[in-house]
Amino acid sequence: MGKNLLIAQSGGPTSVINASLAGAIKAAVESKEIDKIYGSLHGLEGVIKDRLIHINDYFKTEEDFERLKKTPSMALGSCRYKLSKEPDAKYEKIADTIKKLNIGYFMYIGGNDSMDTVDKLAAYFDEKGLDVRCIGIPKTIDNDLAITDHTPGFGSAAKYVAQSIAEVHCDASVYDTPSVTILEIMGRNAGWLTAASVLARRCNCGAPHLIYLPEVSFSYEKFIDDIEKLSKKVKTIIIACSEGIKFESGDYVSAAQNSTFDSFGHAVLSGTGKFLESIVKEKFGFKTRAIEFSLLQRAAAHIQSEVDVNEAFTCGEKAIEFALSGLTRKMVCMKRVSNNPYTIEYYPEDVSKIANAEKKIPREWINEEGHDVTQEMVSYLKPIVFKEEGPCMPEYFYFSKENIIDCNNL
Amino acid sequence: MGKNLLIAQSGGPTSVINASLAGAIKAAVESKEIDKIYGSLHGLEGVIKDRLIHINDYFKTEEDFERLKKTPSMALGSCRYKLSKEPDAKYEKIADTIKKLNIGYFMYIGGNDSMDTVDKLAAYFDEKGLDVRCIGIPKTIDNDLAITDHTPGFGSAAKYVAQSIAEVHCDASVYDTPSVTILEIMGRNAGWLTAASVLARRCNCGAPHLIYLPEVSFSYEKFIDDIEKLSKKVKTIIIACSEGIKFESGDYVSAAQNSTFDSFGHAVLSGTGKFLESIVKEKFGFKTRAIEFSLLQRAAAHIQSEVDVNEAFTCGEKAIEFALSGLTRKMVCMKRVSNNPYTIEYYPEDVSKIANAEKKIPREWINEEGHDVTQEMVSYLKPIVFKEEGPCMPEYFYFSKENIIDCNNL
Repeated sequence: MGKNLLIAQSGGPTSVINASLAGAIKAAVESKEIDKIYGSLHGLEGVIKDRLIHINDYFKTEEDFERLKKTPSMALGSCRYKLSKEPDAKYEKIADTIKKLNIGYFMYIGGNDSMDTVDKLAAYFDEKGLDVRCIGIPKTIDNDLAITDHTPGFGSAAKYVAQSIAEVHCDASVYDTPSVTILEIMGRNAGWLTAASVLARRCNCGAPHLIYLPEVSFSYEKFIDDIEKLSKKVKTIIIACSEGIKFESGDYVSAAQNSTFDSFGHAVLSGTGKFLESIVKEKFGFKTRAIEFSLLQRAAAHIQSEVDVNEAFTCGEKAIEFALSGLTRKMVCMKRVSNNPYTIEYYPEDVSKIANAEKKIPREWINEEGHDVTQEMVSYLKPIVFKEEGPCMPEYFYFSKENIIDCNNL
Repeated sequence: MGKNLLIAQSGGPTSVINASLAGAIKAAVESKEIDKIYGSLHGLEGVIKDRLIHINDYFKTEEDFERLKKTPSMALGSCRYKLSKEPDAKYEKIADTIKKLNIGYFMYIGGNDSMDTVDKLAAYFDEKGLDVRCIGIPKTIDNDLAITDHTPGFGSAAKYVAQSIAEVHCDASVYDTPSVTILEIMGRNAGWLTAASVLARRCNCGAPHLIYLPEVSFSYEKFIDDIEKLSKKVKTIIIACSEGIKFESGDYVSAAQNSTFDSFGHAVLSGTGKFLESIVKEKFGFKTRAIEFSLLQRAAAHIQSEVDVNEAFTCGEKAIEFALSGLTRKMVCMKRVSNNPYTIEYYPEDVSKIANAEKKIPREWINEEGHDVTQEMVSYLKPIVFKEEGPCMPEYFYFSKENIIDCNNL
């Protein structure tokens, strides 16, 4: 009789984290070495609180996997639980359950905080002489995991952001008066998702006209100046800004407004867009509106990136493959072999190199003025958001507003 | 030589108002009686300010129409312009342009304010002996036009709302703690779009759990009581609320926070969701989040309802047909002949009966407690939001969280 698998999901939802779960379950079901599959409800908390379920029986047909792949967020629930640095009673409880359930494989789908959990548990199991192979499966809409080319979850959120900005631009441009619309996009310290707004330009709308990222210090004066200059050429200004933009001092732009903290000690951000809205209204008097994509950007399964779904699924499969080959304390990483044709290789990387690290946008992928991204970013983004070939964004219809009829000389 | 057509769009955008424009242009291009097609930029303001363009040349192939159908918002731009009750210099200017351009047909795509414009102009042209056949083409995400079964634009916005609420429910339910998420939906005095949130239940998520509409007075105490009761059964509470909910006094719930007015004298609403969020946080201490769909709900062309797009297009075609048959001062109305199979008939109705009127939800389509809608509403909504047959909302995957393994007795 083989050993059993324990799998869980952690951190913030994405629209494809269930695709990774489906991939891992499918590979486990198909393997001869793995016997039972246990799911832990609400991440590691489920193990600590004895909230585990049998998973195998849910998957009778191919359709069951397909349904899980298309369901956004996390079917097993999530937690934001951080293990203490030194092993304590929680570690013992986890090891106890691992032994009772004859677990030989532990898979954790999550971001950099979750990879810290994988790293700590793998080290602890090793120290205790428990043969439990621990593999991390990457996910985050933030795309901020170190080493891997990109992370599952990012491509779909990026697609939603780009599409929605193109649509909002159409909406905001209907009136014959100057306006500024500010889209606030998730991303605490890394601006990848905000940068993906650049893909809205594929439908020739020109939007977003300004992109503000956490990687570049935000300056109040520079912001005013950017809008001042732009407003001479563009009537409908669309701004993409990250929730996490900071002043040169390092303070979040939104920090003065909200200083509560989440359970990892990160500042909870809200109101960056609203804050910029108030500046624009005060300085220019333009019609100004801030829109926060909020949960919509990470839950929008109806506009999943096909590439993203498939990669998420494969990451799940690879995790099982790596564990079965004897590896532990690894995360499934992606390496981009080629952009044309778009080709990805999957390989195991030491999870300790990824745990708690954050990958930011290279400065050279941001323009000199710090309010836009470069062509390198567009080339990086395109294949993971849209299919390599064929239509990406819909091509919108525009009337030229230049050829006005001279009614007085008819 | 035939007479010419003048067409314009007015009011707030929808994702299918361009489909109506495409339908009217196509019918006009194909007719022998209509010669040139003129578009007025930014609604009636374009006529008054001499901002007109030739349209015919933009449409060479079927694809051009398809592209316009898929472009959200208003390709000709919009305005919120209200003609004075008694004819003045603006009326004269419009009549002057009508004569200069040999206009025999005037089509205005819009909501109830726009139908007022059609009504006034048709009466004025008649009084001046000008043979200009004026037809209104309905559009509004609010679905609040009188007489017509429903309005183009509503079905697509409703689909976005229902889909997004199901997705947000998946996202909000990941943590093992009670939470309340409030979705603020457009609709000043009629709650149709908010009511459409009920279709999210098609994916078996149970959300939204409470629906608050402008048609029922909002009570602070009742609201607290509703959540109190619900929180005993449901961990992840999803609330759909209209921006326009009012206290029994008739004051908008958000009115105390924002008392500016738009150019029609309507109160500009914002913050209804944020206001309810503050109540829930204060009374229950639950994790609470308000999300405003904002422009996204009316711009989301990527999730257009197919039925809606086709009906919008047909309304445009019918307007030309009615005008060519000699009618004027009419709006294209839809009559539902049957729900199964879903069948609609188009007919002309006096625009004066629709101008400035508002159709609200019948009280019997709202449950007695005033916090949900009835099965009649669901039957009314379904065929105009989703296709009659086949899958509507995706069927999401759920693990049962009841069958917890008893780890202590292994």
